[in-house]
Amino acid sequence: MQVVVLYYSKGGNTKKLAETIAKGVEDAGVEAVLKSTSEVSKDDFANAAGVIAGSPVYFGVMAAELKKIFDDFVGLRRQMENKVGAAFATSNHHSGGKETTIFSILQCMMIYGMIIVGDPMEASGHYGVACQGEPDETASSDGMKLGKRVAELCLKLQS
Amino acid sequence: MQVVVLYYSKGGNTKKLAETIAKGVEDAGVEAVLKSTSEVSKDDFANAAGVIAGSPVYFGVMAAELKKIFDDFVGLRRQMENKVGAAFATSNHHSGGKETTIFSILQCMMIYGMIIVGDPMEASGHYGVACQGEPDETASSDGMKLGKRVAELCLKLQS
Amino acid sequence: MQVVVLYYSKGGNTKKLAETIAKGVEDAGVEAVLKSTSEVSKDDFANAAGVIAGSPVYFGVMAAELKKIFDDFVGLRRQMENKVGAAFATSNHHSGGKETTIFSILQCMMIYGMIIVGDPMEASGHYGVACQGEPDETASSDGMKLGKRVAELCLKLQS
Amino acid sequence: MQVVVLYYSKGGNTKKLAETIAKGVEDAGVEAVLKSTSEVSKDDFANAAGVIAGSPVYFGVMAAELKKIFDDFVGLRRQMENKVGAAFATSNHHSGGKETTIFSILQCMMIYGMIIVGDPMEASGHYGVACQGEPDETASSDGMKLGKRVAELCLKLQS
Repeated sequence: MQVVVLYYSKGGNTKKLAETIAKGVEDAGVEAVLKSTSEVSKDDFANAAGVIAGSPVYFGVMAAELKKIFDDFVGLRRQMENKVGAAFATSNHHSGGKETTIFSILQCMMIYGMIIVGDPMEASGHYGVACQGEPDETASSDGMKLGKRVAELCLKLQS
Repeated sequence: MQVVVLYYSKGGNTKKLAETIAKGVEDAGVEAVLKSTSEVSKDDFANAAGVIAGSPVYFGVMAAELKKIFDDFVGLRRQMENKVGAAFATSNHHSGGKETTIFSILQCMMIYGMIIVGDPMEASGHYGVACQGEPDETASSDGMKLGKRVAELCLKLQS
Repeated sequence: MQVVVLYYSKGGNTKKLAETIAKGVEDAGVEAVLKSTSEVSKDDFANAAGVIAGSPVYFGVMAAELKKIFDDFVGLRRQMENKVGAAFATSNHHSGGKETTIFSILQCMMIYGMIIVGDPMEASGHYGVACQGEPDETASSDGMKLGKRVAELCLKLQS
Repeated sequence: MQVVVLYYSKGGNTKKLAETIAKGVEDAGVEAVLKSTSEVSKDDFANAAGVIAGSPVYFGVMAAELKKIFDDFVGLRRQMENKVGAAFATSNHHSGGKETTIFSILQCMMIYGMIIVGDPMEASGHYGVACQGEPDETASSDGMKLGKRVAELCLKLQS
C-alpha cells in the first residue's frame, strides 16, 4: 500500500513539511511516495490508497503548479473515489491564508470523490497541517501525526 | 450501528431531503436517527458512527439553530473524532450559497476531528447534497446515495 | 455617519478587539456604534454606512449568536446593499479556524449585497483581523487600521 | 478609467460570459479591457481601477492558468490595494463547485488588498456571476449587471 505525499515547494519549507508527513506515513507501515509537482505521475495517483498534498500559501489558494496537477489528472477522477485525502500548507506570514489554501486542496479532493481528514486531535485538530516558515518541532510532529492518520485510515479502509 | 441525520427546517424542504438521506442510511443496513435541531441530544451524537447534518441556505452559512448544536456539543469533541460526517442544504434560490452552507457544516465536523465525505460519483459528486425548493427525483436519489455512502463507510471503519 | 462594530464575546477577548476597531472608526471621524449581539437593533444596521462583525472561533464558523443576527435581520437585505462590510475573529488556539470564521461572516455580508474589505496592507493584509487570546499590540493596531479602512471607505462612497 | 475583465476559457463559455460582463462595464461609461490569461499584462492590472476575473469550474477552484496570473503578478500587490475586484465562473455540471471557484478568486483579490463585490441585488445577489454551460439570457443579464456594478463602484471611488 502506498500514500502519495505531493508538494510544490520553492523555498524548501513545504518540501520539509512534506518529508515529516511522509515519515508519519511510513511509521504506520505504509509506503510513502514523496513527489514534487514536477515528478508526480498519474500512475502514482492511481496506485495510491491516499494522497496528502501541500502548497506554499500564495494569495490564499494553492499554487498554480499544484492546481495544474488536479486539473491535468481529471481523467483519474473516478479511480480516486474513496481514496483518502488530506492537505498541508506553509506560509511566510503569520496570518497568511493557510486555512483557505488547505481548503482549496480539500475542495479538489472532495470533487475527486475522496474521503477527507484534517489533523488528528493529538495534533492541532484542524483542517490540515500548517506552519509559518521552516517547520519547527511542533509542525514536524503534527506533520508526522497527519501522515500517520491518513495511513491508518487507508489500512482500515482496505482491510 | 446508528447514523444521525440532523436537520433544521422551517418550510419543510430540508426535512424532506433529510428523510431521503435517512432512507439511504437504512438501505445500507444501518439505523438512521432522524432528528431536528430541537430534538437531537448529546447521546445521539455520542452513540452514532456518523452524522449527516443539513440546513436551509440562510446567507451562505448554516442556520443559527444548527450552528448552536455544534457550539453546545463542544464537550463531545474528542468523542466525535474518526466518526463520519457529511452535509446537505436546501435553498429557495437557484445560485443560493448552497456550497458555502455545506462547507460551513463540514468545517465544524473537521474541527470535531471527523472523517468527511461528499456526494458519491453516481450522485452529483460534489461537497454534499443540495437542492432548490422541494427535493425532486434527482435530489431524492442523490440524498439516498449520500446516506448510503456514509453508512457504508461507517460499516467499513468499524469492521 | 455611523459604522456598527458588532461582536459576540463570551470571555471578553472578542469585545476587546471590537473596541480597538471602534477606535479606528472614530479616528477616521466616523461614529462607531459598538454593540454586542444582544444589544444590536435593526435600526443600527439600517442607519449604518458599514458593519464590522466579529466572533470567537467556534469550530471554524461564527458563533450561533452572531449568525442569528444575520438570519433575523433578513428583512433588511435590500437596505444593506452597497454598505461596507468587514470581519474579525479571536481564538484560543494557534491554528484555530480563524480564516473560515471570518469568511463565514463575509459570506453573509456578500449575500446582503455589501462591499467587502479585509485588512489593509499596512496591517496584516488578509481577510480580516484575527488574534489568539487577548489582543496584543499588533492585533490592537491591526484592529484600529481595519476600523479606519472601513470608515474611510464609507466616507468615500457617500461623498 | 479601465476595468480588466480577465478569463481563462477552454470551450468558450467563460469567454462568452466575460464578454457580457465587459459590456456591462462599458454601459457604465468605463473602458473594459477584455483579456484572456495568455494575453493579460502586469500593466493591464496596474492601469485598471478594477479587475473582474473568471474561470471554468475545475474541481471547485479556479483553473491553474488563472491562478498563475495571481501568483506571477505578486509584485503588483501593493498597487492593487483599494482597487475593485469581482469574480465569475462557468461549469458543465449543475451543482458544480461554482461558489468555491468564485471564492478562490475573491480570496486572491482580498489578499491583494482589493475591495470586493458580488452580484448586485437586481441580479442573483450572490458571490459573483455563475452559469452552467453557455450563458443564457439570465446569466448574460447578470453578467452585465456585475460589470456595471464594478464600473460604477470604480467611478465612485475615484471621484
